[in-house]
Amino acid sequence: MAEFSLIDRLRQRAGSRPDVVLGIGDDAAVVDPPRGRQLVLAVDTLVEGVHFAKGVPASAIGWKALAVNLSDLAAMGAEPAVALLALTLPGSNEAFVEEFAAGFAALADTHRVALVGGDTTRGPLTASVTVLGYVPAGRAITRSGAQPGDDLWVTGTLGDAAGALALWKSGIPMLRTGALRERLDRPTPRLGAGLALRGLATACIDVSDGLLADLGHLLAMSGVGADLDADALPTSAAFRDAFPGREAQRALQLTGGDDYELCFSAPPSRREAVQAALAAVATPATRIGSLTRGARLRLLDADRLPLPLPARRGWDHFTDGPA
Amino acid sequence: MAEFSLIDRLRQRAGSRPDVVLGIGDDAAVVDPPRGRQLVLAVDTLVEGVHFAKGVPASAIGWKALAVNLSDLAAMGAEPAVALLALTLPGSNEAFVEEFAAGFAALADTHRVALVGGDTTRGPLTASVTVLGYVPAGRAITRSGAQPGDDLWVTGTLGDAAGALALWKSGIPMLRTGALRERLDRPTPRLGAGLALRGLATACIDVSDGLLADLGHLLAMSGVGADLDADALPTSAAFRDAFPGREAQRALQLTGGDDYELCFSAPPSRREAVQAALAAVATPATRIGSLTRGARLRLLDADRLPLPLPARRGWDHFTDGPA
Repeated sequence: MAEFSLIDRLRQRAGSRPDVVLGIGDDAAVVDPPRGRQLVLAVDTLVEGVHFAKGVPASAIGWKALAVNLSDLAAMGAEPAVALLALTLPGSNEAFVEEFAAGFAALADTHRVALVGGDTTRGPLTASVTVLGYVPAGRAITRSGAQPGDDLWVTGTLGDAAGALALWKSGIPMLRTGALRERLDRPTPRLGAGLALRGLATACIDVSDGLLADLGHLLAMSGVGADLDADALPTSAAFRDAFPGREAQRALQLTGGDDYELCFSAPPSRREAVQAALAAVATPATRIGSLTRGARLRLLDADRLPLPLPARRGWDHFTDGPA
Repeated sequence: MAEFSLIDRLRQRAGSRPDVVLGIGDDAAVVDPPRGRQLVLAVDTLVEGVHFAKGVPASAIGWKALAVNLSDLAAMGAEPAVALLALTLPGSNEAFVEEFAAGFAALADTHRVALVGGDTTRGPLTASVTVLGYVPAGRAITRSGAQPGDDLWVTGTLGDAAGALALWKSGIPMLRTGALRERLDRPTPRLGAGLALRGLATACIDVSDGLLADLGHLLAMSGVGADLDADALPTSAAFRDAFPGREAQRALQLTGGDDYELCFSAPPSRREAVQAALAAVATPATRIGSLTRGARLRLLDADRLPLPLPARRGWDHFTDGPA
């Protein structure tokens, strides 16, 4: 069966860790977790034609399949440990697996993540990754701890990935979208920031489906509202060059997915502590508003007058993204 | 987004456990593992048209997607705890998800497994499940501990699932295959047997790809060979009725997949202990041979004369199964 040689290829790139007792090659993996730690577990799937276009390099798919999961661990303030990969492939394409594994391993090695389980099956191209991380008992950052009066923050910049996709859909070859495309293909999970925010952030979520959609989850889980400063959304130079119009910028930044930045809340008394903690891990962060009583999400202009919210508040990734 | 209502449907059936601190609904789940336990992790994927036929009831797919993973934990001697599900669906089919979740939950509840992570995406029908279980430190049963002279055992009966598939492929409606079809659609993970075998079995593997293929892995990992008693393979009455011919029986029992029985080794000195331990969990088991020095796998008749091994030693599930 071809499955075995494909798994061997993944195994060669699996990495090792002292807490991995038994990796790929038995019925299951065995991991010895550090004492006093709770386990943090997430799963996310990438499907060809839904989350990435046909023709995206296999190495980028491998990277991103892990990145979107590590981003979930980052949002919990967890330290990643091991991953399991279920890879479904149309045929027994060894070159694809080799490239996929290289992209996966490039990110895994950066964060000392070992691949301990792999299942390869035949079928439409799909990569489903499960990650396991650790957090000291009771220290996970959830979506539900935000308080009225808290500052609202976001790491990095917003809109780059959605911008790359919009350019590509308007006929501009991906090759020419440069920095924006890198953000779409190889997002950076904000793991250092997540760890740094433990004990500082009151709530946190990763921005995968668009700021409005994901912030909406955080607000609903915390039972608070938010005033969002429309002029404060952090914007990269590459994004500003590609989308000079303010309206287009805002629509992409508020509703475009695949940013994988962290959106979090923290009391104003911790402003300097937040800035110092994130500076220590070289992660830029911007205050983009504040939390309010009630359930309302408002977008405010410079005069604090409400702006209309973009109609589309979800993000269906590749096929239904903004065009 | 439809994703949220689908996940809500899964969440309603998620179950709960005292070690689950945070289940579905945040960026990731948080689990507090019992002290002194090692983690056992496995992932397995079912793809429509590969692992199950179009038209199999969604409840059976839900059951089986979990069962094949619990079977991996059983083979390690692990106690299951939580599962994560990545479900890819062609459309936003709520009835399918409802039925799938019911089948999944029916098995999960039996074994006190909580569903702590769910990801639903659009795409070709695929269910990828990750399971996490516990084992006392150092007590996992691997594939690599078998010794020459050990007895070779298998739980339950062999060939039923492959038999159901063969009947269906020969034009007999699945409805008329009765007990055999249940074995194909709703396999029983041998979790009680796996726990009972800790400290007794020297090596263990679950029979998912066919006895010869899976036994081959155990032998390779342990560096031993085996003499297999062709007349000892355990056979159900339903299977014998459907396939009266000895040759057809053997071919299906040796190469047919989807049995999800445990094949394990144990020294002859533990024969009675093995029988008692498995009787205590109401799991039948049969001695089917013994392990030898060297790497050779032989099939022997009643006079201990070698029989030819069936040519096909793999099992590619649904599409390429025996026909």
